[in-house]
Amino acid sequence: MVQGYNPRNGQPIGEPVESTSDSAVDELGLAAARALPAWSAWSSAERAEVLDAVADALDAEADLLVATADGETALGVPRLTTELKRTSNQLRLFGEVLREGSYVEATIDSPDPDIIPPRPNLRRILRPLGTVAVFSASNFPFAFSVAGGDTASALAAGCPVIVKAHSAQPGTSRETARVVDAALRASGAPDGVFGIVYGTQAGVRLVRHGEVRAVGFTGSTGGGRALFDLASGRPDPIPFYGELGSVNPAVVLPGAATERPEDIATGFAQSLTMGVGQFCTNPGLLFAPTELVRGLAAAVGATNGGAMLNERMRDTYVSDVDGLDAGELVSLVATGTAPEDGWSVPPKLYTVTLRDFADNLATLTEEHFGPAGIVVTYDDVDALLEVLPRLPGTLTGTVHASAGEHDLAGRVGDVLRTIAGRLVFNGWPTGVAVSWAMHHGGPWPATTNALHTSVGATSIRRWLAPVSYQSWPDELLPAELRDDNPLGIPRRRDGVLGTH
Amino acid sequence: MVQGYNPRNGQPIGEPVESTSDSAVDELGLAAARALPAWSAWSSAERAEVLDAVADALDAEADLLVATADGETALGVPRLTTELKRTSNQLRLFGEVLREGSYVEATIDSPDPDIIPPRPNLRRILRPLGTVAVFSASNFPFAFSVAGGDTASALAAGCPVIVKAHSAQPGTSRETARVVDAALRASGAPDGVFGIVYGTQAGVRLVRHGEVRAVGFTGSTGGGRALFDLASGRPDPIPFYGELGSVNPAVVLPGAATERPEDIATGFAQSLTMGVGQFCTNPGLLFAPTELVRGLAAAVGATNGGAMLNERMRDTYVSDVDGLDAGELVSLVATGTAPEDGWSVPPKLYTVTLRDFADNLATLTEEHFGPAGIVVTYDDVDALLEVLPRLPGTLTGTVHASAGEHDLAGRVGDVLRTIAGRLVFNGWPTGVAVSWAMHHGGPWPATTNALHTSVGATSIRRWLAPVSYQSWPDELLPAELRDDNPLGIPRRRDGVLGTH
Repeated sequence: MVQGYNPRNGQPIGEPVESTSDSAVDELGLAAARALPAWSAWSSAERAEVLDAVADALDAEADLLVATADGETALGVPRLTTELKRTSNQLRLFGEVLREGSYVEATIDSPDPDIIPPRPNLRRILRPLGTVAVFSASNFPFAFSVAGGDTASALAAGCPVIVKAHSAQPGTSRETARVVDAALRASGAPDGVFGIVYGTQAGVRLVRHGEVRAVGFTGSTGGGRALFDLASGRPDPIPFYGELGSVNPAVVLPGAATERPEDIATGFAQSLTMGVGQFCTNPGLLFAPTELVRGLAAAVGATNGGAMLNERMRDTYVSDVDGLDAGELVSLVATGTAPEDGWSVPPKLYTVTLRDFADNLATLTEEHFGPAGIVVTYDDVDALLEVLPRLPGTLTGTVHASAGEHDLAGRVGDVLRTIAGRLVFNGWPTGVAVSWAMHHGGPWPATTNALHTSVGATSIRRWLAPVSYQSWPDELLPAELRDDNPLGIPRRRDGVLGTH
Repeated sequence: MVQGYNPRNGQPIGEPVESTSDSAVDELGLAAARALPAWSAWSSAERAEVLDAVADALDAEADLLVATADGETALGVPRLTTELKRTSNQLRLFGEVLREGSYVEATIDSPDPDIIPPRPNLRRILRPLGTVAVFSASNFPFAFSVAGGDTASALAAGCPVIVKAHSAQPGTSRETARVVDAALRASGAPDGVFGIVYGTQAGVRLVRHGEVRAVGFTGSTGGGRALFDLASGRPDPIPFYGELGSVNPAVVLPGAATERPEDIATGFAQSLTMGVGQFCTNPGLLFAPTELVRGLAAAVGATNGGAMLNERMRDTYVSDVDGLDAGELVSLVATGTAPEDGWSVPPKLYTVTLRDFADNLATLTEEHFGPAGIVVTYDDVDALLEVLPRLPGTLTGTVHASAGEHDLAGRVGDVLRTIAGRLVFNGWPTGVAVSWAMHHGGPWPATTNALHTSVGATSIRRWLAPVSYQSWPDELLPAELRDDNPLGIPRRRDGVLGTH
């Protein structure tokens, strides 16, 4: 059985949900495979309608979903209300993507018998890859969970989805799945296009299932690595898109530190402690001039902690910060407050010099999931520029610069872009927009595949594979590739983008 | 030492080349890493000039290169002359891709503080992934080798390249590398942007090198799987794009068989035996009505074999066909002729009923590299449609249909597109155009990653990863993302494609 717990008091909450049996996992996989031909044959516009219907259904059940998630996560009603809205808006973004139509990358080459090698009539399109397994994250019970970005983008692509529910959120998962399933059925989507499984063993079986063609995952580096190895080690390896650990370095340049020390301290403390520090984009490493430490310590010292998502995370955080406290690598400079109850923890801030940091880089760049940060003090920007490229791959990199420091900020950016998927200027990385230009990814260990994103319009690409039609009769082609462009979508013809 | 051999007589040819030492491999990796910042900072237009210069240099040395390759491969001067031209044209295609500019997928989202979550000024672009290792194939000594598609697309992307030479072609590899290196140097490309290594051990070391960020490979399923496992098993897994084995099924529908039996028999025999059957797209399985067998056997019986590329391939082919001859699964219906000398082999054609094929599907869908084909006879199209989806992933799938059979061809196409990367109508798959709409890929075991192609404009994607700039000052952005679009490239702004 999978039992949820209330992080505010550590007590069981809600009815337990039964772990999914091996045979039930197998049957869901087969049902998804049966749904694939029908679902992938729906037009993009038809699938867009379905995604809108799922979005509306989630919004309509917001009160119940938010209350259930708050019980299992302690993230609070305001944050969860916003997150659910973000989740339904994400489904609607994929509706836009489908209606715009260029996501299939329709490409047409006219025949040319005279070049070497000769070119036939050739037309390329992206098609759904097959059934997708989605592993829910605990830190975003809606946006990276049952109806989150992986599910939305995979359904949009025309792929059936089977979700592995997060074991800390059986109630939220079950309720969300019920809403999604009902909306899909009411829209006439084929049976088997959506399923959900519970329990670790069911998740492992899903990754090994012959009908599963790709996996989306957001979670820890250890768990993600184990599943990546399973997916890669199959007799027929399948892509595993994992978003894992990230330290999200932020650099405060000297001018910015002088110009707006308080803004920076407040902004950092807020970003570090938001959601009890359980954002993937939490800025765990801040590179700043020494004079900023006092203000940063004051700001973090004034923050409140809160209950972490589950007991294991709380225990890991406590063990991590106990290790930092007991060791001699970093100095504790601030501890926020924490409620006494449940799985609450206090924010913590440490400091270390750039030289000591560089000497212990592997240890000090381990992610400490939760509201703990390290300020790395530097007084020589050139020395800093030597150290930054040695950081592990990360989802984000941030620069704070004064108006007079743009050249320097550019140099920092040139280094950060080799290790980070998103570069933030004079801001903080914890807000992740859901849009066409978002990239939420980065080199290992930020993700298992630096080419892809788990947020934004292009996340749909993870579930699509090309097919080229050579000398194929026009009336047998997918509508997107027919000569007269009946759908009026953007296409590339003979190398030129347009709607021709 | 790596020694080339003349397949026409089995004797050594050319001077042996020294295997690359571990320390030399390591140094090449570091030199490539040093070249990366400079090379990736060149504008797309500047890199296009360099690719054109490499193309011109290859054309200028065609006589020497073709003669050297003919000595080591026995593929013949006409075929190799065409292949070299295809190779230089491929470099020029990437020049076009770079000048057109949309390959970086410049995407701009305007800020919107009112949506949930709020959207900042966000700009996305693709950037080079880092150093790429390229494993040469033996069956295309130019087009899939030192200066082939993987190298061209990776250099175009802004990535340094280190090639692992094919051990059967040390002379061709060394001469090609000399031409490429000289052209790069003459163009002012940074030191270290191109390197080459020899020997199996050097190849393995390359895949494990910390500075290598991706691998391109064309070769056997066994060798590709081993290297894929190495790449995936690294502490920091890297993408491995392998093009492996493919049986390339072709279906002849009844009407087509009645209408043009001779055309089909001749075309099939030519496609099967072209280049001594050593094309990745060789149609090894033909599904046809029984009455076609006699004509197919006559056509294949009239073909000439030739020398295979190397001794191991010859031995494997001989062992494969000996196994088929000795077993009871298929019946031999034709044997072509073969010159007596060197590593020559004869084409062979076998036949089996659809029912027996279906009962022994795993065995009979193993690729037999070389000019051996199996005709699977069917008399019930519905039974055929049940079997086709069980075939392994493949680069191509072909349908021959009469004018009255388009509906049926559409049904076959719907099945084939789930297992194949390219669908050919009333033609043969062995010609691979180099263009925008080409997809040369497919599900495992055709490739290790069904999302990507090793031929055509979009093959550049394998070497590019996204970065998003958030609230970044306009003058610090890459030119492709600046507000006034100084390069005039196609971009997506607020979801709409254009040049705005």
